[in-house]
Amino acid sequence: MDSVLRQSKAMCPFMKKATAAGLRAMTTAARPAPSPCGGTISKLQTLARRCPVMGKAMAVQSARLGHAGFPGGVASRAAMSTVSGHVKTSKAKLHTSAPQEAQPVEGTIFNTHDKVPLPPRFPTKAQASISSAVRTEAPVTHNGTKFDYEAFYENELEKKHKDKSYRYFNNINRLAKEFPRAHMATKEEKVTVWCANDYLGMGRNPHVLKAMHETLDEYGAGAGGTRNISGHNRHAVELEDSIARLHAQEAALVFSSCYVANDATLATLGSKMPDCVILSDSLNHASMIQGIRHSGTKKVIFKHNDVKDLEEKLAALPLHVPKIIAFESVYSMCGSIGPIQEICDLAEKYGAITFLDEVHAVGMYGPHGAGVAEHLDFEAHKQGKPRGTIMDRIDIITGTLGKAYGCVGGYIAGSAKLVDTVRSLAPGFIFTTSLPPAVMAGAKAAIEYQMGYNGDRRLQQLHTRAVKEALGEKDIPVIPNPSHIIPILVGNAELAKQASDKLLQDHQIYVQSINYPTVPVGQERLRITPTPGHTKEYRDHLVGAIQTIWEELGIKKTSEWAAEGGFIGVGEPNAAAPEPLWTDEQLGIADVANALRQEQATDRGLAERLLANETVQGMQTASVAAL
Amino acid sequence: MDSVLRQSKAMCPFMKKATAAGLRAMTTAARPAPSPCGGTISKLQTLARRCPVMGKAMAVQSARLGHAGFPGGVASRAAMSTVSGHVKTSKAKLHTSAPQEAQPVEGTIFNTHDKVPLPPRFPTKAQASISSAVRTEAPVTHNGTKFDYEAFYENELEKKHKDKSYRYFNNINRLAKEFPRAHMATKEEKVTVWCANDYLGMGRNPHVLKAMHETLDEYGAGAGGTRNISGHNRHAVELEDSIARLHAQEAALVFSSCYVANDATLATLGSKMPDCVILSDSLNHASMIQGIRHSGTKKVIFKHNDVKDLEEKLAALPLHVPKIIAFESVYSMCGSIGPIQEICDLAEKYGAITFLDEVHAVGMYGPHGAGVAEHLDFEAHKQGKPRGTIMDRIDIITGTLGKAYGCVGGYIAGSAKLVDTVRSLAPGFIFTTSLPPAVMAGAKAAIEYQMGYNGDRRLQQLHTRAVKEALGEKDIPVIPNPSHIIPILVGNAELAKQASDKLLQDHQIYVQSINYPTVPVGQERLRITPTPGHTKEYRDHLVGAIQTIWEELGIKKTSEWAAEGGFIGVGEPNAAAPEPLWTDEQLGIADVANALRQEQATDRGLAERLLANETVQGMQTASVAAL
Repeated sequence: MDSVLRQSKAMCPFMKKATAAGLRAMTTAARPAPSPCGGTISKLQTLARRCPVMGKAMAVQSARLGHAGFPGGVASRAAMSTVSGHVKTSKAKLHTSAPQEAQPVEGTIFNTHDKVPLPPRFPTKAQASISSAVRTEAPVTHNGTKFDYEAFYENELEKKHKDKSYRYFNNINRLAKEFPRAHMATKEEKVTVWCANDYLGMGRNPHVLKAMHETLDEYGAGAGGTRNISGHNRHAVELEDSIARLHAQEAALVFSSCYVANDATLATLGSKMPDCVILSDSLNHASMIQGIRHSGTKKVIFKHNDVKDLEEKLAALPLHVPKIIAFESVYSMCGSIGPIQEICDLAEKYGAITFLDEVHAVGMYGPHGAGVAEHLDFEAHKQGKPRGTIMDRIDIITGTLGKAYGCVGGYIAGSAKLVDTVRSLAPGFIFTTSLPPAVMAGAKAAIEYQMGYNGDRRLQQLHTRAVKEALGEKDIPVIPNPSHIIPILVGNAELAKQASDKLLQDHQIYVQSINYPTVPVGQERLRITPTPGHTKEYRDHLVGAIQTIWEELGIKKTSEWAAEGGFIGVGEPNAAAPEPLWTDEQLGIADVANALRQEQATDRGLAERLLANETVQGMQTASVAAL
Repeated sequence: MDSVLRQSKAMCPFMKKATAAGLRAMTTAARPAPSPCGGTISKLQTLARRCPVMGKAMAVQSARLGHAGFPGGVASRAAMSTVSGHVKTSKAKLHTSAPQEAQPVEGTIFNTHDKVPLPPRFPTKAQASISSAVRTEAPVTHNGTKFDYEAFYENELEKKHKDKSYRYFNNINRLAKEFPRAHMATKEEKVTVWCANDYLGMGRNPHVLKAMHETLDEYGAGAGGTRNISGHNRHAVELEDSIARLHAQEAALVFSSCYVANDATLATLGSKMPDCVILSDSLNHASMIQGIRHSGTKKVIFKHNDVKDLEEKLAALPLHVPKIIAFESVYSMCGSIGPIQEICDLAEKYGAITFLDEVHAVGMYGPHGAGVAEHLDFEAHKQGKPRGTIMDRIDIITGTLGKAYGCVGGYIAGSAKLVDTVRSLAPGFIFTTSLPPAVMAGAKAAIEYQMGYNGDRRLQQLHTRAVKEALGEKDIPVIPNPSHIIPILVGNAELAKQASDKLLQDHQIYVQSINYPTVPVGQERLRITPTPGHTKEYRDHLVGAIQTIWEELGIKKTSEWAAEGGFIGVGEPNAAAPEPLWTDEQLGIADVANALRQEQATDRGLAERLLANETVQGMQTASVAAL
């Protein structure tokens, strides 16, 4: 506990009774109306509104944003962030032990960017002994009055250990020739990877590897410079051409990663456009949150996928002010899908531009793999008629070359002038070495391959359906969603880590547990990502292993969540399972599926029956033969 | 010109008479006491001090930093930045048209992060017609009251065109088998590359390529995830081990680029350490400037390589406050070298930690290629005794895998706890896909190769000496420095671009011109980077071509600069040429050099004579044979 917290405790009757752990839990606990993705207001916010000091402060800040009233459920974090740096309240420091890298947890009312007043400037003896114990080689050079840097690091790490957010990396070496298998530290310890983002196995695609080998031989390992100084080449030109074509946009620009693309683009536009306001979905990725923060401009957070909330916030802003609506198509930790069309409509109505992160969707949706925006006008794009489509209406699309395309790097696509502006102004683009020619050539090969062949993503969807179906039939709590992500609710940090460890040690299956701060406390989960390579034996193995572990560890099943009234979509009464974004027709299985349904007069096991069907098996063979 | 500027013009008698171009030039013009690297105060600052309004404001801000007086030449930009966001003066907006990506130009008094109030919210007819003229496909969807985004982009680009900072990329495809040759857009147009940062040709090193080919085949194209979720592997572990060993530090951490490493590390430490102050060399790279800005903490800029100025600024800060001194070993645009030992001494004295960017030095200096810090204790490191050396005293070393190591990526190295803290807290590390296994394997091979063999960097130094010597003898104005960088002063943006274009078109030599904002206006230059592959025929060709172009374009020679009293080290009276950091002894040429000196009783042409010498030729052969 830091000194500010101690001071607050002395003054505030509520704080006097609260423990640090209790406060932390309250800021993240999803009550009273959590959404499947964690979109909610926190218990602490609810309590804070009753406080004569905080309640007033929160209302004032909401009003500053232009809200006449104080609408329930408004992400106060947006309000706080908007004025961060100007308003100083000692209480705003309470939650600063929350790690800065937190995935957005809607309902956290405090700006985690505030500086942590830890450790005390005069380290206690206990702290000094901890820090000197770990400094085996470096002499203690700081006397009592100098800042003790090692003690500070020690303290930061200690906090991570205490709140269970310290990360232990697993040594996973994915084997190209044995996809989706990998070896651990030694080559003998083999495991099946069920949580990589190489969704389509393009990392081992022979066309991709061939392009990379050839480019390596011809053009060497690295680009040798920034784009402006000897690092611009045909690989960059061709890759950006492919990306622009993929998204039917005028131009594209490649960055070191999509983290950098999002960060650099939002920071640049937000800081350059006069009085710009960025409206950000509450579950946006850390890269967008950072980009918005780095822009230094106004941020307004709207509730996850809540078009009504977004419209209220847009309507409260003057029409002439530039506005960027930043959101995602597939939210990676819960698999929810953004209301792209509705957001385009709002953008048009209120004079905003749209910034759509398709990182988890490119390669995976649409006839050419351009993402969810393309998928929404499947037929038009299939016929090569992009004009007037939803994708055409998006102003800025960002994507990655490191997930479904199997390589590394990120990009933006948009109008020629927009792209040229970011190219000309963003330090994160200008002052960095280009991606290696071989990486750009590989990424281009992957994009082109997936533009011309949709078998991999269709098979991936069928495998996803099969795993969701099998887990569902075993009462395993899959958080419902229409995408290719399979989040299994555990609801406890310790248990989630134990389940992950047990899968690895007892079953040679690698699924990383997802804990706070990536998801809210109480919503811990396993996140499973099937690929075209996860054939029946792997699926059966996975489902059996999860079932065993759920029994062994006594993790709650769907029926148990249902008995409690349900939680974030699991076991909720009358909650219809969302239709998959890829329809039977789009997957080319409508006829077979109907025949199979009639055959056994049940949907039970339908996905596995489909995959066992001759016609559908042909798809798998084609997918392999194409390699 | 924007409306704020118009308002200021109406009020201020000085502004009334000034043109926009004049003001811009004044903020960057290096008068009255420019340093070879542009370290100086601007003309506008000098004038501003005489102003009853600005002069007072500047003094107040200097005082806030703890300076009793108002020392001449203090980088007022530091003072302004320190309080940026808190002080609002309409005049501070005047220079906001300066592009944000500017390399630091000491003497710019305005925070370029301020938002540009352009374009006007109600576009004029002229502007509207410009923007609609370029929008060939997208319909004009915004009515008069909505913000016109395309017009805004158009306007930003127009500004870049007007101030000649718009960048045109050259399509340069560096050929691994013909290093240092490249082809342009077509394979027939061959050129010699003289400005890449693949300083040692490691991008085509067979050991590097072999490691990459093998890793590609075994582990595929991409890592498949973040370090925490399936993207951590033996390649990351081994690469970080190599880096830690290279710098004799406890641990290392790899990032997408060193831009990201610098940005993420400074932003994380600066924001987390209570009341942290970051002291930054005025010529620091954009990545550090961004990292400091993103930390949101106090920044104090000290004059380039000025230990006295740094000490004054350190002494003005309370001892107990955490402080980070951020600086570089080799400054890439002028080739100057940071006073590492002196800065370590100051850090110790004032309780600061050192953050040393060795991006342009790793692979290039020291017995193992660990950089300038290693070079300074050459013998100790050669004997494998790093403890107590200058490198050992540095707290945080950052470096790149994309320049002398020929690949891509960046890193930090330091104490285990420091590295673990950044690993645990920096969003730019946590939420991004790992580098591809093949890239990490290639980078590791490059580091290990250069740790065990110093022939490439010695030959690179000899080639640098030969080029500097030949240019010097032809009266071509090389900005003197002790490193491997060869900056040739042009002093005019148009001329520099013309010289670069002519080199390419008439002589098939690629040297990018370096203009504002990367260097101050009036200090435009060509930046030449020799490699071990730049053998005599290439050197003769380059020197001849430059001589021709200097005549054709009438660019000032050293003697002409001298006639004007000299400028940034060129033609300055009594300015001794700095001794190269690599001594004759370290290069292993002392005996041969002495013999050659006596033979012709002159140093003239010594470097070329050395390179023609049998013993030294053996070095070149060994360098090639090692491949």
